[in-house]
Amino acid sequence: MPAVMTAEELSRFMKEVFAQVADDFAVDEVGEGTLTMRLLTQDRHLRPGGTISGPSMFALADVSAYLATLAMIGPQALAVTTNCSIDFMRKPKAGVDLVAEARLLKLGKQLSVTDVMLYSSGMAEPVARATLTYAIPPRKAA
Amino acid sequence: MPAVMTAEELSRFMKEVFAQVADDFAVDEVGEGTLTMRLLTQDRHLRPGGTISGPSMFALADVSAYLATLAMIGPQALAVTTNCSIDFMRKPKAGVDLVAEARLLKLGKQLSVTDVMLYSSGMAEPVARATLTYAIPPRKAA
Amino acid sequence: MPAVMTAEELSRFMKEVFAQVADDFAVDEVGEGTLTMRLLTQDRHLRPGGTISGPSMFALADVSAYLATLAMIGPQALAVTTNCSIDFMRKPKAGVDLVAEARLLKLGKQLSVTDVMLYSSGMAEPVARATLTYAIPPRKAA
Amino acid sequence: MPAVMTAEELSRFMKEVFAQVADDFAVDEVGEGTLTMRLLTQDRHLRPGGTISGPSMFALADVSAYLATLAMIGPQALAVTTNCSIDFMRKPKAGVDLVAEARLLKLGKQLSVTDVMLYSSGMAEPVARATLTYAIPPRKAA
Repeated sequence: MPAVMTAEELSRFMKEVFAQVADDFAVDEVGEGTLTMRLLTQDRHLRPGGTISGPSMFALADVSAYLATLAMIGPQALAVTTNCSIDFMRKPKAGVDLVAEARLLKLGKQLSVTDVMLYSSGMAEPVARATLTYAIPPRKAA
Repeated sequence: MPAVMTAEELSRFMKEVFAQVADDFAVDEVGEGTLTMRLLTQDRHLRPGGTISGPSMFALADVSAYLATLAMIGPQALAVTTNCSIDFMRKPKAGVDLVAEARLLKLGKQLSVTDVMLYSSGMAEPVARATLTYAIPPRKAA
Repeated sequence: MPAVMTAEELSRFMKEVFAQVADDFAVDEVGEGTLTMRLLTQDRHLRPGGTISGPSMFALADVSAYLATLAMIGPQALAVTTNCSIDFMRKPKAGVDLVAEARLLKLGKQLSVTDVMLYSSGMAEPVARATLTYAIPPRKAA
Repeated sequence: MPAVMTAEELSRFMKEVFAQVADDFAVDEVGEGTLTMRLLTQDRHLRPGGTISGPSMFALADVSAYLATLAMIGPQALAVTTNCSIDFMRKPKAGVDLVAEARLLKLGKQLSVTDVMLYSSGMAEPVARATLTYAIPPRKAA
């Protein structure tokens, strides 16, 4: 099933509905059930020592699963996260971008399930992994 | 096992080590393995419609598990979250504080496990629940 | 909201739909959104040393969340687990029952969320904790 | 880092330490941080309709993460699961094997983190996914 929204359309949609945080993120690439995006790290995302905070990593994982879902079903501002499990495995590298690689594992009528791996740009081993479930609101009849 | 840090000491410690976010939170009460604290909601924690964002709920759950652990073992800036599972169950109420009730389920030598319930102030039913595991660095010999 | 099924009715229903495992479990008590039940430990639930296996603990947590949901909505054989997070915190005591205390945190139209604490009978500290999400099939109109 | 145990050695080790369940499983293949194994489905793993039970899926995910860890560190009967999050996404197909593909994401001194995808043999889409954390006991000095 091919994506129905491009990286540009997803970025534009994000700016419309989440104006407050849209500038923190950039969508790099959208495929069939996959999406790559990054956190544009700013001071407010950091902890002492230059490492990226847990809530900032959660935020990137969460938005990447949201956009990976929307890429397949079209703009649905009302999809909401119902569950997330996240494992923090390594300290993110200071001074480089944090990249999310999201992969949709299930797209049902009511739920999507997405796996996300987080990488510090240039490191081979993942910084964190997360799985997120989104509840999808009933589609309106055309 | 009684707590070894008071609510005031935990607040002071938070300000020292996480200066950037400490003003977002207030510690209300510390008991034996329990801690109550709140998010002092500001515009940057909100989503359109006035509801609190997922990352802000995660941040409150995370810091409450951290402080519930430190309350029992003393100041250990280096404890790090290794795992979190969180269920978002209801929309937080706009315009009221978000309150975390944290309860330490296990305090081992290497790990703590904490359950957290999040409530919108004045609502009986929880907005979200989370369980967090912290890795505790080896204690230095005295 | 009071329960609509008693402990006896839940036991009978379990025997009808899960004949293969129903004899492993006994329902002790049903309250408003709460349920207590136990694993009737047999050799096949054990690991060397007499401790209860992880899959047996998972099975007890899973069935207790299922029955806690059914207690509130009536017999729905088709409810299915969609997500579980479980923390194994202490070794279960050999030779005693494993008890589950389930508490329904959310009962929506499509999903229930239940917290479960597992105890070795007679121990104050929990052996494990779990949170389970069940997908509830659409109710048939009367 | 290459594996230090082969599929045959892992099978033999499993038979020694978990005699009660070892006949339920077969190890297919071991790579660098990866392991493929299957549940040899028997009646006691099934639910009415021929589908595989949740606890049986959990058991396969759990043992595959355990063996993926041991493949890299050698036989350590005492490694224990501390956390599992599992998403059940599709009904397993009746009458075919359930296959686990495990991938070690982190191998630290104290913890391993493993991702597991479960497939019904011959289906392209996963039946379930899980992430498991194992606590590794301190290695004895040689």
